[in-house]
Formats: sequence, structure tokens, C-alpha cells
Amino acid sequence: MTAEIITIGDELLIGQVINTNQAYIAEQLNGIGMFVERMTTTGDNARDILDAFGAGMARADCVVVTGGLGPTHDDITKKLVCEYFATDLVVNENVLEDIRVLLAKRNIAWRQSAYDQAMVPRSCTAIRNPNGTAPGMMFEQGGKYFFSLPGVPYEMRGMMENFIVPFFRSKNLDAVVLHRTLKTTGVGESILAEKIGDVADVIGTDGTVTLAFLPNPLGTKLRITVRETNIDAAEEKLRRAEAAIRSKAEKYIYASDDHDLEDIVNQLMRTRALTLATAESCTGGMIADRITNVPGASEFFLRGFITYSNLSKMEMLGVPLELLERHGAVSREVAEAMARGAREAARTDIALSATGIAGPSGGSAEKPVGTVWIGYSDPEGTFAVKFNFADDRFRFKQRASQAALELLRRRLLKIELQAH
Amino acid sequence: MTAEIITIGDELLIGQVINTNQAYIAEQLNGIGMFVERMTTTGDNARDILDAFGAGMARADCVVVTGGLGPTHDDITKKLVCEYFATDLVVNENVLEDIRVLLAKRNIAWRQSAYDQAMVPRSCTAIRNPNGTAPGMMFEQGGKYFFSLPGVPYEMRGMMENFIVPFFRSKNLDAVVLHRTLKTTGVGESILAEKIGDVADVIGTDGTVTLAFLPNPLGTKLRITVRETNIDAAEEKLRRAEAAIRSKAEKYIYASDDHDLEDIVNQLMRTRALTLATAESCTGGMIADRITNVPGASEFFLRGFITYSNLSKMEMLGVPLELLERHGAVSREVAEAMARGAREAARTDIALSATGIAGPSGGSAEKPVGTVWIGYSDPEGTFAVKFNFADDRFRFKQRASQAALELLRRRLLKIELQAH
Repeated sequence: MTAEIITIGDELLIGQVINTNQAYIAEQLNGIGMFVERMTTTGDNARDILDAFGAGMARADCVVVTGGLGPTHDDITKKLVCEYFATDLVVNENVLEDIRVLLAKRNIAWRQSAYDQAMVPRSCTAIRNPNGTAPGMMFEQGGKYFFSLPGVPYEMRGMMENFIVPFFRSKNLDAVVLHRTLKTTGVGESILAEKIGDVADVIGTDGTVTLAFLPNPLGTKLRITVRETNIDAAEEKLRRAEAAIRSKAEKYIYASDDHDLEDIVNQLMRTRALTLATAESCTGGMIADRITNVPGASEFFLRGFITYSNLSKMEMLGVPLELLERHGAVSREVAEAMARGAREAARTDIALSATGIAGPSGGSAEKPVGTVWIGYSDPEGTFAVKFNFADDRFRFKQRASQAALELLRRRLLKIELQAH
Repeated sequence: MTAEIITIGDELLIGQVINTNQAYIAEQLNGIGMFVERMTTTGDNARDILDAFGAGMARADCVVVTGGLGPTHDDITKKLVCEYFATDLVVNENVLEDIRVLLAKRNIAWRQSAYDQAMVPRSCTAIRNPNGTAPGMMFEQGGKYFFSLPGVPYEMRGMMENFIVPFFRSKNLDAVVLHRTLKTTGVGESILAEKIGDVADVIGTDGTVTLAFLPNPLGTKLRITVRETNIDAAEEKLRRAEAAIRSKAEKYIYASDDHDLEDIVNQLMRTRALTLATAESCTGGMIADRITNVPGASEFFLRGFITYSNLSKMEMLGVPLELLERHGAVSREVAEAMARGAREAARTDIALSATGIAGPSGGSAEKPVGTVWIGYSDPEGTFAVKFNFADDRFRFKQRASQAALELLRRRLLKIELQAH
């Protein structure tokens, strides 16, 4: 089954917004065995949108459209969908009820625009939207499918995951595409490639399996993709490729597929019934922020200290003035004293600390921008490891928080810290 | 002058790579007064690529293509460009010399594939590539322009900046496009639309000005776009549209264009030489994390308390046990005690606090998931405001941190807190 994706919005044509919806939808459709053959972006312009609808439906078996479904004047997609499918708008009672519930939950008064949102084309199947007021729409015409979804990413994603993907899964398309993403950190892309060696040994040579290296500031993802005609063969090939990679790079792999490092740390800490505190200078709360993004964090994460000033390091963590003066705030000694002090003040099993120079200013020849010490303390001892993540300020924080969480993961799993 | 962008590559169609090239090219073309009307993505497939070339050149005055110019088997764009323009490949001596220099600089041995890279279509103008071996190509046909650039982002960017943008700048296109984005928060999209009222009063009716509403979890952006024939008229219209919106919705607008709420807070706090502390429960460090994403944060942000447990609220912030027992951790009283306690412990001018139920569990009929109290304390007094951001855990944190920063901004600017 072939598919095309149409994304609508002037903000895309002026380059103000990067089209992440397109990539997400492509990935999802791909995952259920559809071949996306073209992606088109148009502005909020009736002629161009109708033209794209017609061309997409003429070429592909399935067209997925996002954007232009909100309540304001520039949202014209619903009107054009009606025009394209020669139908009119009627109130959908289920959607109306969904909107009532959503507005009540958010404490927003009922208003006419909400009623307009509950109008859907007569001949469509309405797709319910738990995350917003604009419903999605599905049309079936001559054995082809047409979907229109809102452009707000999390609303669109909810409908892809809860409706479109299950809908096509239940249809048993005659192609199977499986993906497995193995997430690594603490190792560069090229070293990882060396460790893995000849890719043909991992994925074979018949073209049904592909391996992609996808680097980002948090590490390098390895994505295995298998395209097969039946599920058993596909699963067997995926299993074999994953095992081949793991045999060569296991220690760098912290998670697979949708799991993040903070999810893994959450599991490990809760399973072991250990408690954690954080003491952050340069990361400014990002380590704790990531830890607390995962449900259940309150079971093990008790408190965090954000000690941006020297005085706060002294008062909150008991770092001696003398250490700060002799070694500077960015030093092994201070990182260790922060971790030890956080563990003692919080009376937790483990504490992590981070002190470094995020930049853009504050660097020196001896301690350039990007220098960061990650500290760790538990009842067996306290130590700190130095990294350099020279980058922009935000990516520095991302990398430093990733290094801190990875240090915790490796320590919990007794994996050597400097893995390569 | 109208333009279309065509990006080529299977990696885009499976959603493995997000199409940042497209947005970059759109932004550049827009900046020199071109109207990008459509963006198309195809795979490494001759039929689809030729079809996209033909459709683009039929519709637009200028087509910019990226991708498929590398040395590997799946790079077929150059061959197809020859086919489309009915020409053949010849060696370009300048390009050949560029490649020799580049390979020498990188210590790479000369090879046949480098010679192939120096072949360009006979009827094109070669665009030199200082960052790689694949040259770009320009064709002029019937008053229209066609460009083919490599897909490697920094190679493509070099050619846009050094060749295409200056080329069109020198032509003095008779169009000017200006944008202004006004960022609002603390007000829903539909209420904002009501406040602004009849859009025609803001943007006029001659079609030269457009207004878009772009909602996201942090608020709604209003984007004004002006398309005019001369810069003075464009600036005047932009100024007028912005003033019209501000006259109706000023208090909701916290920043314009690329500035975030944390940038504005950073400016305000530093200008006033005030200091800040944060006390976070449900936001788990996100408020401090956002504050410290902005350079110069250390000038005003002294410390943060992440008090995930009741005990930490008592020990770190001096919240009385009796308050926690009587009102619960998620209450006006505790939010106020946290803000007051943080300000006293940190000896700052101002402190912000957040306590709430991020979910997915922990809610009750009286205090459902999404309930959050934001506290504020300064020498003039302490208070807390209640919100409900029922949503997923991460977006709850985003919204709650935005509400806290917005509360600080409004307080600093003496804007009423419950603005609607």
C-alpha cells in the first residue's frame, strides 16, 4: 500500500517551523508496512490544498493530511475537505461530548467556537481527539483512504497512535516492516562503527535488513529495519541483527526503542529500592528535570539542590570555602564534595553532582568552556569523572545530564565507567 | 517571484531524517522576497523525481532541489537533471580543481569517483562547493530558474549563502516579505481570537498582510506576514498590524520573534538587579532548568530547591508539618510557605514555587491530576495562584513552568495576574 503525506501551513513555507510532523507520520506509516512515496507541503491556500488532495489521491492508496483544523480564520482544511468530498458539515455528538469534557477538565467556559469544532463532514468517520478540540476525519473512497488530522504535534500523534496505526494493523497489509532502535551513549559514532565492524555481518546481504547510525547530542541511535513478507521471518531477522550488534557493543546500549535513559534509571532505582538526590550547578536542574519526567520518580528521587552560586554550594551542600578557593568551583574536589554533601543532607543512598562551564563565557585556558565534572557518591565511596562537552549552552546541558545519568546506570549495573 | 523546493531522499520518506534543509531553504528564499508556494519530497526514484521537476517548473518561477548528488549508487539526481534539460555531462575544470584542492586539504587520495563528481551538465552554470566534492547546478530556462544542490546540510547552506542568495539579491526582486511573531501565554487560542476580534481590522483586506494563530503547550504565537513591493510600505504595514494586535492583547504578549519567556525574565531580572530562587515540587527542576538555559542566568539566579518529598519541603524550606498535614502538599498554603521559605533560605529578592499533581496517578476528586499551585514571594508579600494543566506529565511540567515564569514576568511589569 502506498501513501502520501500532505502538511499544510504557511509557517512551514516560510521556514519558521521545521516539519517534524511529516517525519513522524512517515515513520509510523512505514512501521505498519506502508510505502510513503511523496510528501507535499502547501500554504493555507485553497487552490494549492485542493490541488494537493487531488494529486495525492490520484497517485497513492492512502493520503494523510495535517494542519489547518483549528478554530481560527486561517484554518481552512475542514471546509476544503468538504469541498473535495462534496459533502457538508454536521454536528457529531461524540465529538461534542469530548469537547465538553476537555473544556470542563481545563476549566474553560463553553463557547461558540467549540461548537464549530464539533462539526464534521457528513460522509467521514470522525477520529476522536483526547488532547484537543479539533477532531480528525477519515474518508474511504474507491478503496483508498484519506485522513485529515490537526497540525498540533501531540494531538496528531495521539490520533496516529490510537486510530490510524491500529486501523491499518487490523487490515493485515501484505508487507511487514519491523524496526528496532538501540540507543547508545558515551561513545562516538565512528568508534561505535569500528566496534560493530563489517555491517554485512550484522544485516546480511539480501537487502531485507538495513542499519542506520543516527547521532544526536544524547548519543548515537542504531536503527535496524527489516522488510519482509511474513512476520516470522521478519522477527527472526530482527532478532539476529540485534543480537549481532549487542555482541559487539552491549555496554554502550542503554535502552531500546522508545525508552530514554531516565526511564532505565527509574526502573533500576525502583527495583533496587534505592533513593537519589542531585546537586547541580552547570546543568541548572536539567538532571532532576529529566528524572522527574518519568512517572514514579517520587518513589526514589527525594530532593535536588541547584547550587548556582558558591555560597549555595557551601550552605546547601557543606562544600568547604577552602576547596572552592583552592580548586575552583569546577574541579574534581568540588564535584565530589557536592555529591557527598547532597547524599548526607538528603540522607539518600546515592547522590549525583555536576559542576562545569556551560558557556558561552566563563572559560579559561586551563578550564575551557565545556569542561564538566560529574560526581557520584554512595556508601561505598565518592568519585568524579571529567568530560568536555564544548557545544552550545543547551546541548552542553543535555550532554552533561546524559553523562550523569549514564554514570548512574553503569554504576548500578557494575559496568566499567570509561567504557572505551 | 514564486519558488518551490524539492528534497530528494529515501531517508526522508521513512521518517529517519527530519527535513531541516527544506525549512532552511524556505527561510533563505523568503528573506530575499521569494514566495515559496510548495515543498515536495520524493524518494531516490527517477519517475517521481522527473515528475516533481516538471510540476515544479510548470508552476513556479524558481525551483530549488537538494539531495541525490553524492558519489554512491543511489545518487541519481545529476543524471535526471541532464535528462530533464536534454543535455549531457562534461568535465568542468574549475570544479575539478576545487575537488583536487579539497582532497589534498583532507589528505584523501585522488580517485575516479572524484573525477565523476567534476562532470556537470553542459548547459548549466556550475555552483562551486567549498565544503564537499559535489558541485551545484543552475539552469535558466524561459525566464525561470532551476537549482540543484547537494543534500549535505552544510554544503547546501554554503551554496545558498554564497551563490543563490547573492544572485537574487543582485536582481532586486520587486517583493519584500516581513514577519513578526508575537508570543502569548496564559490565554487560550479561541479567547485570544475573541480579544483580537475581526481580523480584517488588524490586517486590512488587500491581501498583503496575513495573520496566523500557532498554538503549542507554552501558549499561542501570532504571526504577522507582510508581502509588499517596497520596504517602507512593508514596514509601515507590519508596524500597524503589530500595534493593532498589541492594543487588544498586549498583556498576553510576553515576547516577539525568537525570544522565549526565560529570555525576557532574564532581561527583566538583570536590568532590575534582582535575585531569584526557585522551590519546585511537581515541576522537578524544569523552572530552574529553563532559567539556566539562558546565558547570564548566574547573575540573578542563585539557587533552586527541588523538594520532591514532604520531608525535603520541611527541611529545605521550613514548611511546617502542620500545614502539610492540614492542607496537603498541593495547596495554597504550602505553595506560599515554599516560596517564602525559599526566599528566606536563599536570601533572594524573589522566590517562585510550584506544587501540584503531574500525574498520571496521585489525583483525587478534590485535587485532580493537573492541579498546580504557583507561589510567589517578594518583600511586599507572598501569594499563590491555582491552575489546572491536565495533560501528559511532560506537558503538565511545561505548562506549569511557563505559568510560573509568566507570573514572575507579570509581577515585574505590574500586569494584573489573572488577565482574563
